[in-house]
Amino acid sequence: MTNICTFRTLSQVCVKRKCPKVHLKELRKLYSTHNNKPNRVIFSGIQPTGIPHLGNYLGAIKHWVKLQNKPGDIYYSIVDLHSLTIPKSRTFMRTSILDITACLLACEINPERAVLYQQSCVPEHTLLSWVIGCLVPVNRLKHLPQWKEKQMPSVDGGGHIGRYTYPLLQTADILLYKATHVPAGDDQAVHLILTNEFAKSFNRTHGHFFPQTQIISDPTFARIRDLRNPTVKMSKSSQSENGRIEITDYDDAIRGKIKRAITDCTSAVTYDPDNRPGVSNLVQIHCGLSDITPTEACNTAQNMDTGAYKTLVANVVIDHLSPIRERYFELRQDENRLKEILKYGNQRAAKVAKENFNAVRDLLGIQL
Amino acid sequence: MTNICTFRTLSQVCVKRKCPKVHLKELRKLYSTHNNKPNRVIFSGIQPTGIPHLGNYLGAIKHWVKLQNKPGDIYYSIVDLHSLTIPKSRTFMRTSILDITACLLACEINPERAVLYQQSCVPEHTLLSWVIGCLVPVNRLKHLPQWKEKQMPSVDGGGHIGRYTYPLLQTADILLYKATHVPAGDDQAVHLILTNEFAKSFNRTHGHFFPQTQIISDPTFARIRDLRNPTVKMSKSSQSENGRIEITDYDDAIRGKIKRAITDCTSAVTYDPDNRPGVSNLVQIHCGLSDITPTEACNTAQNMDTGAYKTLVANVVIDHLSPIRERYFELRQDENRLKEILKYGNQRAAKVAKENFNAVRDLLGIQL
Repeated sequence: MTNICTFRTLSQVCVKRKCPKVHLKELRKLYSTHNNKPNRVIFSGIQPTGIPHLGNYLGAIKHWVKLQNKPGDIYYSIVDLHSLTIPKSRTFMRTSILDITACLLACEINPERAVLYQQSCVPEHTLLSWVIGCLVPVNRLKHLPQWKEKQMPSVDGGGHIGRYTYPLLQTADILLYKATHVPAGDDQAVHLILTNEFAKSFNRTHGHFFPQTQIISDPTFARIRDLRNPTVKMSKSSQSENGRIEITDYDDAIRGKIKRAITDCTSAVTYDPDNRPGVSNLVQIHCGLSDITPTEACNTAQNMDTGAYKTLVANVVIDHLSPIRERYFELRQDENRLKEILKYGNQRAAKVAKENFNAVRDLLGIQL
Repeated sequence: MTNICTFRTLSQVCVKRKCPKVHLKELRKLYSTHNNKPNRVIFSGIQPTGIPHLGNYLGAIKHWVKLQNKPGDIYYSIVDLHSLTIPKSRTFMRTSILDITACLLACEINPERAVLYQQSCVPEHTLLSWVIGCLVPVNRLKHLPQWKEKQMPSVDGGGHIGRYTYPLLQTADILLYKATHVPAGDDQAVHLILTNEFAKSFNRTHGHFFPQTQIISDPTFARIRDLRNPTVKMSKSSQSENGRIEITDYDDAIRGKIKRAITDCTSAVTYDPDNRPGVSNLVQIHCGLSDITPTEACNTAQNMDTGAYKTLVANVVIDHLSPIRERYFELRQDENRLKEILKYGNQRAAKVAKENFNAVRDLLGIQL
């Protein structure tokens, strides 16, 4: 693994400047988590960019809910600073933050168990991001998968600095809480490269301070595809509204969208994502919501044609989403309560963020 | 002037999303400073990178002190986040922040009059910097004079991201306090290009919020040169310690350094920076400390050879710096008092920074 930092180690600097070594050793010991087995700390974030769709639900939110029953500290962040990288109107931003908060609560994120908070209310995210930027070479950033992804031509002819430097903020998001785990699909592990490289490099200089972060692997992690174009992921920005099911969609809308889902000319229900992406996508939705395997799903559907299977899948989706939708509309009415819940999370997140960043400031020498 | 932002205006977005226009108008009015003649707000920053030298004193600190007698709000920041762009040891950083605080107080910066504070203690600097980064295209940054300067090959083979994105933080530093004026030499005006372009662009979208910032022109602004190599600026990183006079240097050291200053073979004292940089540098030091013009300085020295003039200049420097040095050593002994003074400034700066950034958050829609 490449060494991302070219600065001298602290001990080299110390020899040169004759500063008290003993004190530094004590400092490293004070902040070290090396000898104590670190607590499991989970971090994940979601952008406030509208009502989540089934892809967001099965690819993230459902797993967030499951993780609440496992040990460890949990931070779920509404990453509004990240969503500023693509400018939106004031009203859209404000509404989206409240929408996503209500959605997460409706999906049964428990704000007493998990720290549910708004990223921009914890300023240590950008402070740590600045510190990371001072230690990571530009060339390193240029070779990150995130950078490559964002360099693809974009509709608005963008290319603002935030769209290139956001991996630094992503790294800060995770390390600010010393997160040991991030829930995501295995294919997302590449996004942790910078985080773990930076943590190692920082630790080499300042003693063991940041943990290594790993993906929480979950075999039921599903990448749901667009219903109208199953070769691409289900997305908020997809051309056809019929391509995605939002988690607050009414029953009729869900039925209609699944009925219109693109499949193929074969009547039987089989799971073959490469050759039959359309019907396999329906199988994935079925599996994700019913916690069954594709084989089990296909067994259930063995006497059905695709049309009948669509009705089955629509009913599964409706059964799952309609109570969420009802809770959502109830929660969304009371904006003050949503704000209070976020405020409570902001305070809890800020406490840990401040403590951890103050330790970073101390290690860097800017804490007097 | 180039339009640095490619995003749609808020009114365009509004038409599309049918959000209440009246409310937006009220919001713009609430934060607008367009109709009231804005208060004069001065911002300047100094990096904690050791004891300031005569170049720092005559190029900045002396003018900071003079500005205290003029109307307006004043923010003087110890920009420790900027100094992280070139990594230093913990001890060096910590000592330097206290050193520079004591130096500024010794030079008679009045912490009751000016808000004297430590940048990293006001996290809104990096928050606003992130927001600016989300609105400024990478290509714009690449054409800034700052970027070009930093792309020069550096001793440590650097190229960390912070060294490229620091103009964003510089812009945030200034705009966070809605600074109308920055004390600097006229040649520094190029560093305000991004600040003023960003302010204009933000205002076009969100109503008049940020002022345009201008240089405070002062004819006595002096660019002092290295005593041993008068073709370059006096610098903390210059090869020979004899090239610079630190403002806490003892009298003998000052005498010795000025005696060893490189001049030329002409005996008379004249002011001709291009052809006689060495002796002209001494004239500039003399003028800066005595508040006289080069012509007046040369008249004073008309019967002297360069050697005798060096003695005169050394005496002027000693007369000016020795009381500063004495105050410095007294102040530097009491670290707790220095910390208290900074804490007081941090609180005052944070209050304004929080208020202004909250208004930015409100305009962007991330303030609930």
